[in-house]
Amino acid sequence: MSFLDQKFQYLTPYVPGEQAIQEEVIKLNTNENPYEPPKAVVEAAKAASETLNRYSDPDCQEVVIPLAEHLGVAPENVIVGNGSDEILSFLFQGFMEKGAQFPDITYGFYPVYSDLFQLKASTIPLKDDLTIDLEDYAGEETVIFANPNAPTGLGISPTVICDFAKANPNRLIIIDEAYGDFGDVSAVPYLKDHPNLLVVGTFSKSRQLAGGRLGYAVGSPEVIADLNKLRFSYNPYNVNSMTLACGAASLASQDYVEACTNKIIETREWMKSELRKLDFEVTDSQTNFLFLQHPRVTGEKIFTYLKEKNIFIRWFNQSRIVNYVRISIGTQAEMEKCLAVIKQIEGVES
Amino acid sequence: MSFLDQKFQYLTPYVPGEQAIQEEVIKLNTNENPYEPPKAVVEAAKAASETLNRYSDPDCQEVVIPLAEHLGVAPENVIVGNGSDEILSFLFQGFMEKGAQFPDITYGFYPVYSDLFQLKASTIPLKDDLTIDLEDYAGEETVIFANPNAPTGLGISPTVICDFAKANPNRLIIIDEAYGDFGDVSAVPYLKDHPNLLVVGTFSKSRQLAGGRLGYAVGSPEVIADLNKLRFSYNPYNVNSMTLACGAASLASQDYVEACTNKIIETREWMKSELRKLDFEVTDSQTNFLFLQHPRVTGEKIFTYLKEKNIFIRWFNQSRIVNYVRISIGTQAEMEKCLAVIKQIEGVES
Repeated sequence: MSFLDQKFQYLTPYVPGEQAIQEEVIKLNTNENPYEPPKAVVEAAKAASETLNRYSDPDCQEVVIPLAEHLGVAPENVIVGNGSDEILSFLFQGFMEKGAQFPDITYGFYPVYSDLFQLKASTIPLKDDLTIDLEDYAGEETVIFANPNAPTGLGISPTVICDFAKANPNRLIIIDEAYGDFGDVSAVPYLKDHPNLLVVGTFSKSRQLAGGRLGYAVGSPEVIADLNKLRFSYNPYNVNSMTLACGAASLASQDYVEACTNKIIETREWMKSELRKLDFEVTDSQTNFLFLQHPRVTGEKIFTYLKEKNIFIRWFNQSRIVNYVRISIGTQAEMEKCLAVIKQIEGVES
Repeated sequence: MSFLDQKFQYLTPYVPGEQAIQEEVIKLNTNENPYEPPKAVVEAAKAASETLNRYSDPDCQEVVIPLAEHLGVAPENVIVGNGSDEILSFLFQGFMEKGAQFPDITYGFYPVYSDLFQLKASTIPLKDDLTIDLEDYAGEETVIFANPNAPTGLGISPTVICDFAKANPNRLIIIDEAYGDFGDVSAVPYLKDHPNLLVVGTFSKSRQLAGGRLGYAVGSPEVIADLNKLRFSYNPYNVNSMTLACGAASLASQDYVEACTNKIIETREWMKSELRKLDFEVTDSQTNFLFLQHPRVTGEKIFTYLKEKNIFIRWFNQSRIVNYVRISIGTQAEMEKCLAVIKQIEGVES
């Protein structure tokens, strides 16, 4: 017998990328960082675990203070969550009474949250070249999009975003910068001039902490205070002590983190160039993944062939992008293996 | 400028117990376990932190399987969350379309969740002796209460709960057993006969993992599947890898956990008896805290006096229980110190 409210009868949950059971899988399907976390993270986790009998700090100061410093803002401009998904859920729950606008092709969780919180959501089609054009976002709804966008990998300039924010002072404009550290389009430096801009970020991609669950938002003190009002009405101890300690250790290991980011970008550019030699159309990704299609081979074929060879990538069975696949950037060795297998697919090499 | 939806303008967040900044504080205000987690937890946290660059398992099998075994149920009867607060929020969000009924004196988060999800909530007064009488819970609303209840510490028999569940087969009856391991009133053994009963539990109290954030619900496969539908629409990676590993390690350290529980119960009974010698009225707690009042000294006075001496306890400035204080059970040494300070309060020793 189901006791679930009628309103959720047709709710369709988000489908995360498949987890690898076998050890030998090359996992390029959830945009994880292929490099292990810095050593300081392991030490921090161990130390924090010794006092787990005490609650974590509801104010999360251990991370909020150094994160604010890293971002060049004040602590009252920052809130942290149990992954950026939790922050995004607060935003859909509490800041969209006039509805939500987001691209037709973007992070797959936005439509799920719209359903979960029973919002009026409008999806705005990307241009034919898969870019976002903010001129299409007229109205009074709250706007949210990923920049760089997923799964396209393409970013738009913060200058364009700032102009849009200035022209729409009564609308909250949310920029999901999950992949921001792999590109050059972050709006964080412009937040102080635009109190209606909010940037969401995560430690899952560039900071090697996907399994630790640490996300954040940075914006005006008023919006952050309102987000905290929801957080404290929901789960005041939302970030556990170990993750707080790991987040602080990651911020204190900036050189290592940046070195890994640079390696990923280097591998991405190499892989993009190799794929283009094979006639793949590859977008100019500003992220830690590539988005590509081939004139002679379907996306489904590429996905299926690689999976048989224990290489997991992502294929979205969704109109407009049904022929594309998304491949996360692993280590150079993993990508060389991946490329070799791609070359075996019939039709790739003409 | 605030962008928060109008409906949340008057939302009043939950207020957690104060965190101790100074080292020398005796912290008896948030019902934490005074004993450190088992050694296996520390090893598990360290090992899990080494692969944090990978996402955690959305199915949480590492904990769900041994937890189900521990509870004597199947894995499909169990869901885990980022603390039991997250599980409770799913329940208020998705299972209360006919409204919620809960005691006037119980866990302070129930009214907050009712506001957050804009529910019709009815608070049912406890009897004069601070007990719950399920005969007062007629209607068609979903029922939720803590058993043993907080902050009263009093429990009701699972037999009574089962009779109530049987008489109300179309209502979901949620029993929050956060303190269940310190008493003898758990409804878990009766779940298989009552598909409309759901038990919520936590690793925060008896399992020394308050800072790790791990809660669960156990009930019929249908209710658990519906809860998972919400979980996957909200935050599929809701429990981080370190906490999953720590939870599994805690379940594998059952002897240590039970030894700590037994020490806490022993200390509780000693403290209760000492306090009664001082004319305190102390409820027969089945939890890891005591709830007490004194005929000659106000609750506020006790709270304030102890705080000045760096002993933190909880006082609820709430009608009906304004004269009571709640004291978590620490180590025997901490409670002896606490008792000594209580004796100094003017009016306690007549």
